[in-house]
This record gives sequence, C-alpha cells and structure tokens, in this order.
Amino acid sequence: MEIQKLDSNHLRSGFLETLASLAETNLTFDQAYTVFYDRSLCPNIHTFVAISHNIVCGDVKVPNVVGTATLITERKFLHGGKRAAHIEDVAVHQDWQGQGIGKELIEHLLQQARVLGCYKVVLHCKPELIPYYNKFGFREWAEGMRIDF
Amino acid sequence: MEIQKLDSNHLRSGFLETLASLAETNLTFDQAYTVFYDRSLCPNIHTFVAISHNIVCGDVKVPNVVGTATLITERKFLHGGKRAAHIEDVAVHQDWQGQGIGKELIEHLLQQARVLGCYKVVLHCKPELIPYYNKFGFREWAEGMRIDF
Repeated sequence: MEIQKLDSNHLRSGFLETLASLAETNLTFDQAYTVFYDRSLCPNIHTFVAISHNIVCGDVKVPNVVGTATLITERKFLHGGKRAAHIEDVAVHQDWQGQGIGKELIEHLLQQARVLGCYKVVLHCKPELIPYYNKFGFREWAEGMRIDF
Repeated sequence: MEIQKLDSNHLRSGFLETLASLAETNLTFDQAYTVFYDRSLCPNIHTFVAISHNIVCGDVKVPNVVGTATLITERKFLHGGKRAAHIEDVAVHQDWQGQGIGKELIEHLLQQARVLGCYKVVLHCKPELIPYYNKFGFREWAEGMRIDF
C-alpha cells in the first residue's frame, strides 16, 4: 500500500467509492472534477489517498484507491505565525476496513503537519472514536459545535 | 461599527491588539504581513474585522479594529459538492468587550457561510461557551480532539 496526494485520475479509480463509506457522494465524474478543481485552488487543503496495487483487471494489476484523509491548514497570526491543522474525512473503502489503512493515513497526516510546521492538529469525532484517536496522542480538548443550513 | 474583510492596513490599526485578547501574537508588522500574504493565497480563508470609527487621533476620527473572526471553507466531495465551514479565532479587543461585537461578527460569518452555499458551520469552543453558541443555533455535535507538536 502506498500513500499519494489525490490527483484527478483517482476520481475514476475508487476515490468516490471510498468516500461512500462515510456518506453518499452522489456526484458524477464531471461534478467531482469541479470539486477537485475548486479544492486545488486552495493550497491549504491537502488530500491524500491510500493506493492498493493488488486489484487485478484482466491480467493487469491496477492501482486503486482504498482510503483517503484530508488535512486543512491555516497559518495563524497567533502562535508566532505557525500553522494549525484540521483533519477531515478519514475514510477507508468498505472492502478494506480493519487492515490498518486508517492508521497509516492518520500517521501520514501527522507527519505532513510536522513538515508544515504546525503547532497543533485538531479534529471532530464521535465519542466512540475517542479511544482510537487517543492512540495517536490526541486528547479531548473542546466541544464540537455545529449548525446546519 | 462596520464589518469589513481584513486587509493589510488593518495590521497596523488594532488587529493584532484585538487578537491579543485570545493569546500573545508576538509578531512584528513584517512577520504579520507575511502571515497575511500566506493566508491571502488561500481563497477559502475569510477573515473579517469589526471597525470602530470612533477612535479620535488629534482632531481626526480614525478607523480602528475592535473585533475579528475567521471562516475557513472546504468544498466537499460529500454532501453534493457543497462547502463546510469552520469558525476560527473570534476575538474582541479587551476595551470593547460586552458590547455585542462578537455577536455581530458571528452573525456575519453565518451570513457569509449561507452566501457561499455551506451546508454546515462547525467550531470548537470551551464548555462554558456552549450556551453562548446555542443562541445562534449551534448544537453540541462531536468531540473536539487535539494533538500538540
């Protein structure tokens, strides 16, 4: 398994199916490409994919997205101008869960956050996932509030 | 009082002093300008300032930053390609607190989020601020986790 930056080719090779483990994507390829393009204009949005090269199509092994996770950074006027980072949309394809792919993705995001000089990484999670994130060193810190439109 | 997008002139007219109500900024003007420039490259970071025109300097009324708040948006592959938004760094200058400036800033961010087609706005807050954010329609939703480097 290999972790790469998301590129537009991944949109046709399992990326949307992987995200579907979180919620319906309901996007055509053209719509997904528009989202990809819009996100690519934001240099602080870093989306990674876990790639498996073990999918066989005919006689050929083809790379396929089996996981994804995103890091959003924000350079702060506080904290000496360092960056803060948010983890978003950690997803593993439903056929590939329980194999440590989420763990590898989160460790990759934390490594990227260090490379980018972040002073903290934050995320929102369901209460039942607290022990999972504790294993990486995350601690309970604040209330996550939300408003829907 | 008026709400404007942050521009570089605000860095010299109370913006950093306003943020100091959250934590030490410790930035020179040149360092703050570098942060401002870096953020300006990210079209999904929207920082607003509340301006008072009542500061008198000699015989002249000069505009001065008395509050600030930031909205970070992320266009999602989920939720039909709509945007999610994060509220960050809501601050009111210590001499101007208790006058509803934070409320005006948060309402402005929510209005901007609607204009940008966001399906949700999220934030992290201390438990004692839950009733404050409840008044805007925010509800407790998830655990806020954090790791520091």
